[in-house]
Amino acid sequence: MKNYDILMDLALIMVGAKFMALVARKVKAPMVVGEIVAGLLLGPCVFGIMGPNSFISQLAEIGVILIMFSAGLETNLAELKKSGLRAFVIACAGVFVPFVCGALLYSCVYGFSSFGSEGFFKALFIGSIMTATSVGITVEVLKELGYLKTKVGQTILSAAIIDDVIGIIVLTFVLSFKDPKTKLATVSLKVLMFLAFSFILGYLFYRAFKLIDERYPHTRRIPIMAMGLCFALAYLAEAYFGIADITGAYIAGIILCNVRDAAYIDRKVNVNGYMFFAPVFFVSIGLKTSFNGMKGSLLAFSIGFVLVAMVSKLIGCGLISKCFGFKNNECVKIGAGMMTRGEVALIITNKGMALGMIDASYFTAVILLIIVSSIGTPLLLKALYSKYPDKEASA
Amino acid sequence: MKNYDILMDLALIMVGAKFMALVARKVKAPMVVGEIVAGLLLGPCVFGIMGPNSFISQLAEIGVILIMFSAGLETNLAELKKSGLRAFVIACAGVFVPFVCGALLYSCVYGFSSFGSEGFFKALFIGSIMTATSVGITVEVLKELGYLKTKVGQTILSAAIIDDVIGIIVLTFVLSFKDPKTKLATVSLKVLMFLAFSFILGYLFYRAFKLIDERYPHTRRIPIMAMGLCFALAYLAEAYFGIADITGAYIAGIILCNVRDAAYIDRKVNVNGYMFFAPVFFVSIGLKTSFNGMKGSLLAFSIGFVLVAMVSKLIGCGLISKCFGFKNNECVKIGAGMMTRGEVALIITNKGMALGMIDASYFTAVILLIIVSSIGTPLLLKALYSKYPDKEASA
Repeated sequence: MKNYDILMDLALIMVGAKFMALVARKVKAPMVVGEIVAGLLLGPCVFGIMGPNSFISQLAEIGVILIMFSAGLETNLAELKKSGLRAFVIACAGVFVPFVCGALLYSCVYGFSSFGSEGFFKALFIGSIMTATSVGITVEVLKELGYLKTKVGQTILSAAIIDDVIGIIVLTFVLSFKDPKTKLATVSLKVLMFLAFSFILGYLFYRAFKLIDERYPHTRRIPIMAMGLCFALAYLAEAYFGIADITGAYIAGIILCNVRDAAYIDRKVNVNGYMFFAPVFFVSIGLKTSFNGMKGSLLAFSIGFVLVAMVSKLIGCGLISKCFGFKNNECVKIGAGMMTRGEVALIITNKGMALGMIDASYFTAVILLIIVSSIGTPLLLKALYSKYPDKEASA
Repeated sequence: MKNYDILMDLALIMVGAKFMALVARKVKAPMVVGEIVAGLLLGPCVFGIMGPNSFISQLAEIGVILIMFSAGLETNLAELKKSGLRAFVIACAGVFVPFVCGALLYSCVYGFSSFGSEGFFKALFIGSIMTATSVGITVEVLKELGYLKTKVGQTILSAAIIDDVIGIIVLTFVLSFKDPKTKLATVSLKVLMFLAFSFILGYLFYRAFKLIDERYPHTRRIPIMAMGLCFALAYLAEAYFGIADITGAYIAGIILCNVRDAAYIDRKVNVNGYMFFAPVFFVSIGLKTSFNGMKGSLLAFSIGFVLVAMVSKLIGCGLISKCFGFKNNECVKIGAGMMTRGEVALIITNKGMALGMIDASYFTAVILLIIVSSIGTPLLLKALYSKYPDKEASA
């Protein structure tokens, strides 16, 4: 592949994404769905004009990092503190219920195994694939609809971030039986260290940015340095603490959300997002999808897998939200918002394969889950919000 | 290399570039120089914190494409038509003088060879490496100083674009003696076809954008579709017509420069540029620089090569400008603006190596030329403009 081939891919991605997004809006679907469908159309699934490649994947990663950074910048810190406990409990339920349901699904299809046997850990592993919410798509939909800053929106966002961390601990727990190198204590310690690290670093950077911002308000250096902080924290989270890079990016956003120029930074980051990186991210989800070699029995399992993964998240998060005084429709919104799965599920599947816990055929089930939840969640959220609009809405 | 390693590179590039750009401004140097120096500091030349990699190179390519697209968008079409002949003649001189001087330099150092011998073509090839101006850096400096839209600025820009095309014809002429697959007639025909193609396609897209722009002014689709056009033309230029991708991007800009929302598109493209892609481009120039294995005799030749390449361009373009009624200081500005060399020189060198015309050691000379001209031109331009400010300046 020549260096310039990528230019044609980018041209197709941008024009295709925008065109399908406008079509989606025409049929009253969220624009994000249009962009994912553009990827399905361009990719091996339909026309096969282009496939995924490492450059597009890395741009897509930057895309979701910018989405999460922007979500962090738009966070209302006071609201986040209030919703902390609530989000934590919802996240726990959102990890626990899918984990158990996933394990049960595997056991029902392939037979129950005794405690400690190979099949038992396989079942647990299938469960742990189902745990991690991928909140990028939900954030974009809530933003598009203008509900990101509401109580429900902020609860989904915080819960999804926390659920990522809990999911990692559960995964570590399962893996620690198979892989002697994986230690639950080490991982838990790392998570705690990351929190402490973010807190200290966050405070220092917050003070530094506040100072620069007061001396040079509205200069280019502010958003550029902010993007630098975002990339650095995303890297550190993943490289040193084993936490997803998007969590690091979100925390970078939270660190800066009370700086006076937060809205200015957010605006500049958003232009980069919607002009270039976000379309690449959404299209790349579609590009990665391929159903080659899908066999009958696996198809049946995959459909079951998708249904269980989505419904268990919906029920797990939805029911527990009821305890915090959310109205019924709000509970469904929270549950629906947590349904999306993304690259974290793929990464976990990959890890399981590398350790020989599951075989490659489960990839198809995971991809199906990603694509169905990526398209289903936005549609469901939009339907819910048009039926039960949230009165405290603000863009 | 893991997927997330790139995040740390990006963080360092952005923070480093901005920091050094501010330092450069402090010492009254153009900010672009600061960004290139940041690359030198980060790269193998000084601290060796990171090296060039394919992802960064591709981002850099997108960076220079966006710079040229933006330059096209800011073009005054009426002025361009007026300056057409002038720019053409200046470009011819800017190709011819360095070409001859380069060949003479080689012959002086390594001895004159008889017509048609190996040494003779080697000398011609060294000359053709010197022909292609890389205007990205000059554009950014003129923009920073606020002189891009002046008569001098537009003349430099057009001449540099034309010189790229003439340079390709000269290169083809030289190569056609060595490589039976390279045909001068084919290449000339391709260039003509590209011009015809751009003209027809350009007219169609101009009408289409005008229509969309009138119906949906100031909507996101306008800049996104424009970026799509830019990438597509950049690709087509390089893939089908053998012309540099940045020329395609510049033409895409010219096509849209009379659309009512041209300034709006330019603003959005610029945010992407200065927030992300442009720093990556300028830093990557520094990152690619390495003087490993530089030997004494080669060093002497390299220094001669750099001097001849820069002075011949300055004199070639400068003297001929005098014929068009430019004042002395304007002639020097035009000559200085055309001095920068970039990736095109590297690509030509690469081609010559692949055909066995020159050996790898000349790479060092070309890299030295790129880095010296990339830093020297901005400094010289800024000095010239502060001594002889242009009265028709406009940002």
